[in-house]
Amino acid sequence: MTTSNVRPADMERITTAELARKFIDEQIKELRTQIGDKKVLLALSGGVDSSVVAALLIKAVGNQLVSVHVNHGLLRKGEPEQVVRVFRDELHANLVYVDATDRFLDKLAGVADPERKRKIIGAEFIRVFEEEARKLDGISFLAQGTIYPDIIESGPVKSHHNVGGLPEDLQFELVEPIKLLFKDEVRIVGKELGLPDNMVFRQPFPGPGLGVRCTGAITRDRLEALRESDAILREEFAKNGLEGKVWQYFTVVPDYKSTGVKDNKRSWDWPVIIRAVNTRDAMTATIEEIPYELLHHITKRIVTEVPGVNRVLYDLTPKPTGTIEWE
Amino acid sequence: MTTSNVRPADMERITTAELARKFIDEQIKELRTQIGDKKVLLALSGGVDSSVVAALLIKAVGNQLVSVHVNHGLLRKGEPEQVVRVFRDELHANLVYVDATDRFLDKLAGVADPERKRKIIGAEFIRVFEEEARKLDGISFLAQGTIYPDIIESGPVKSHHNVGGLPEDLQFELVEPIKLLFKDEVRIVGKELGLPDNMVFRQPFPGPGLGVRCTGAITRDRLEALRESDAILREEFAKNGLEGKVWQYFTVVPDYKSTGVKDNKRSWDWPVIIRAVNTRDAMTATIEEIPYELLHHITKRIVTEVPGVNRVLYDLTPKPTGTIEWE
Repeated sequence: MTTSNVRPADMERITTAELARKFIDEQIKELRTQIGDKKVLLALSGGVDSSVVAALLIKAVGNQLVSVHVNHGLLRKGEPEQVVRVFRDELHANLVYVDATDRFLDKLAGVADPERKRKIIGAEFIRVFEEEARKLDGISFLAQGTIYPDIIESGPVKSHHNVGGLPEDLQFELVEPIKLLFKDEVRIVGKELGLPDNMVFRQPFPGPGLGVRCTGAITRDRLEALRESDAILREEFAKNGLEGKVWQYFTVVPDYKSTGVKDNKRSWDWPVIIRAVNTRDAMTATIEEIPYELLHHITKRIVTEVPGVNRVLYDLTPKPTGTIEWE
Repeated sequence: MTTSNVRPADMERITTAELARKFIDEQIKELRTQIGDKKVLLALSGGVDSSVVAALLIKAVGNQLVSVHVNHGLLRKGEPEQVVRVFRDELHANLVYVDATDRFLDKLAGVADPERKRKIIGAEFIRVFEEEARKLDGISFLAQGTIYPDIIESGPVKSHHNVGGLPEDLQFELVEPIKLLFKDEVRIVGKELGLPDNMVFRQPFPGPGLGVRCTGAITRDRLEALRESDAILREEFAKNGLEGKVWQYFTVVPDYKSTGVKDNKRSWDWPVIIRAVNTRDAMTATIEEIPYELLHHITKRIVTEVPGVNRVLYDLTPKPTGTIEWE
């Protein structure tokens, strides 16, 4: 059982399938020792870290793992469906799927301030997870997808209990099987565990999800325009060899309209903003020089296929002075 | 004196300096016959059409022409100064310069609706011009920069009096010396009259000026960001061989902010949107494929030099579904 939060100097970097298998075998043993016949709870977002932890725990303790997937209504197109398909249907996980879309969107209605939006999403997430946790009996452990950069960022403080906002009577012992791994190692382990490529090589996605890209006060119709335009961008990047090349790419739909012309009539609709950036350290970022031919094609698809949109803009701003996200 | 509004079938297209000189000589004679020793009034915007009419009339009747330049506060950087320099200082015109910036911006304060903004600007323009006209004695003629496409667009109705919103007691006989010319002919004539290139080859500029590009309710600080970013774009297009190549290019500053980072601190600022389009007929338009190297340079200049701006976006939308202007 790995209790130290410091990666040993002699720990070999996982760079091959073989090293990943070795790591997986060791972890399965350690997890079985740690957990015994007790139950483990996991908030499964569908991101690579929590997905790898889920897949490891399913291999180690099977249905003693209860995974809770909270759909806050701010996920990308197809994401909650994929989580259910991969974990419930293919890996036969004990998966609790909670569609909390209405709850989140009702709380967020009319809230334009970015900080307040983030706080509402974070607090509501904890509340939904807490409610699900209370419905379950005999949970002893909480699994988390902590990775080594998270530990480096938060400093050398050792924490054995979750401190993420759950109340005192819901404190569990932590299970963090990938806490000494770097992101590239997590991906290799995920691939070896049989997770699909688009889950393992998924771009970074912020906790508040599409909420920070549907800028200003979120509405359902604008959120839908965001989800659809983002799906078109991802599809076209995948088709045109940019999926593995560009670090992060997404669309933003601001709460702002401009004049245009559709079907020979004046239209008054939103623009869709494309963001596509590369970075080494997330402290600075440069934009991807997307070829104009592809930009024209994506623009045409978005203004044709997405209701409520009449323009497409490309965000040319490096970081600084822009941040990667818009709020 | 040309009274017909139909271009004769045998009228030669003005394509050379020689043909332009011939046209100018004929017009000077005709204008002297029409005007005699009476006075002519002209609203001089600084655009190519009214500038060519002013230069022709100065040659024909000198100080019998009174040109009124109304600065509504929505002109591009350096434009009112250029009108004064070229017409008052170089051509020794009888020029009335009216700085009505405060009047216009006060009327426009808090008005976000595009249609209402346009109406306020148009109506206020007539009112300022009317006030100036009333201060002058013995005006008999009103000169206008009508060109042949204006006549084709408005149909074959012949009008001898101005109908642009001036009251009944301020109806003058019209003087329209370039009403049978196409735009390219107007430019050749303007060059032959000695007007500066950046006046003669000026891009089309809408009547409400920067007002339709400072979208939403206009504020002085955002208008300043618009004027400065537009000046940077024009300077860089001129330096990089795009000035004569691209049909129309400008910036837009929407009433919308996003998060960024400046001087290691969070910033909450406007984006500047670049619009650069080519068209044959203004009914459809495609975007210019500005090289990324130049886009990076312009972006860097704008976010560095223009206060209140943290992002630069490139509008990728053809017409349709976008219009050339944003409102």
